[in-house]
Amino acid sequence: MGSGVFACFSFYSTLLVLKMYSLAVITGQLRLRRKAFANPEDALRHGGLVYHRTDPDVERSRRAHRNDMENIFPFLFLGAIYSLMEPNLHIAHVHFLVFFVARVVHSVAYLFALKAPTRSLAYIIGQIPCVSIALQILVNIAAVW
Amino acid sequence: MGSGVFACFSFYSTLLVLKMYSLAVITGQLRLRRKAFANPEDALRHGGLVYHRTDPDVERSRRAHRNDMENIFPFLFLGAIYSLMEPNLHIAHVHFLVFFVARVVHSVAYLFALKAPTRSLAYIIGQIPCVSIALQILVNIAAVW
Amino acid sequence: MGSGVFACFSFYSTLLVLKMYSLAVITGQLRLRRKAFANPEDALRHGGLVYHRTDPDVERSRRAHRNDMENIFPFLFLGAIYSLMEPNLHIAHVHFLVFFVARVVHSVAYLFALKAPTRSLAYIIGQIPCVSIALQILVNIAAVW
Repeated sequence: MGSGVFACFSFYSTLLVLKMYSLAVITGQLRLRRKAFANPEDALRHGGLVYHRTDPDVERSRRAHRNDMENIFPFLFLGAIYSLMEPNLHIAHVHFLVFFVARVVHSVAYLFALKAPTRSLAYIIGQIPCVSIALQILVNIAAVW
Repeated sequence: MGSGVFACFSFYSTLLVLKMYSLAVITGQLRLRRKAFANPEDALRHGGLVYHRTDPDVERSRRAHRNDMENIFPFLFLGAIYSLMEPNLHIAHVHFLVFFVARVVHSVAYLFALKAPTRSLAYIIGQIPCVSIALQILVNIAAVW
Repeated sequence: MGSGVFACFSFYSTLLVLKMYSLAVITGQLRLRRKAFANPEDALRHGGLVYHRTDPDVERSRRAHRNDMENIFPFLFLGAIYSLMEPNLHIAHVHFLVFFVARVVHSVAYLFALKAPTRSLAYIIGQIPCVSIALQILVNIAAVW
């Protein structure tokens, strides 16, 4: 895979995917501890249909996970296209690192309900490299056409 | 990146990702205007826990965003694989353009609650190039095996 | 595209995307049969605002679809990076096949509300090749750096 931009992108992206997987594990653990199951068949296995219910912390973890899908999945696409454009390695690294740190902070701020606007700021800071990459892709393509 | 199918695909895909980002901004603006926050910490910052509530237009924007995730994310994958198969540029362009226009119409129809079945038709028309691409990928692979 | 790991990955991935599309169709059909619409404009077209309501089976199909987004989309990324690393074809095939079968079983278990923990087991088994691929990507990159 080489040691260039694409490897750098793959490294941070894979860590972010593992971070997303961990949110699924957290949601599952919260469902078991709080006894709050989305499906009646799960509730039946864990004590009865009364546990087919929602829980605020389970919903919080699910919102964090959905926000990751809305933001990390597009990054997996944009970052790959950007890496193929052979950008400067150091500039690319800064883009990926800012996004990575911002999304980790976002998840922590979400799960621990940190005081607003911590989570929103992490979201906005994470979007800056994404919009930057999107614009660079469009400019790069426009320059060829 | 060249001026071929992959650049064409990257162009429309990047525009669609920016379109998805705009839905997140719209959801955020609606939350602020309608004072309807998903998290108590956000409600506290904007007037009190009474604003930890749902709003029909916020939910509408979130449904539009989720529908984009269900349909645009698979396109980012299928379109990339298809582009690597070196299809005819004009045929590929038609596939990408139909999907692009259909998804823009879908978002507009969703946000402005246009009369049914406008939104559903946009969804179906957008799926046609996607299923076409998926079948061409399977045929292409089957031809090699 | 050749007949190697990338074609194998593209084959299973494309089938999984089509499987996800089928969940959208099932949700749509359930909405029509149960007369349970998420949008008032859809309810108006199908008998009146009284049908702007939720239905347990519609929600079940939507949960299955969301779970696919949480798990199949990351696979589309991880599997592509992994394929570029030129792994052994037979080992790669086992990874892809286990994920594919597990996700099909997951959807069936979800839609038919099979007894717990069938669905959870399918989810866990499907995650094993994903985590394996993620770790191999990280090791591969670390070896170069």
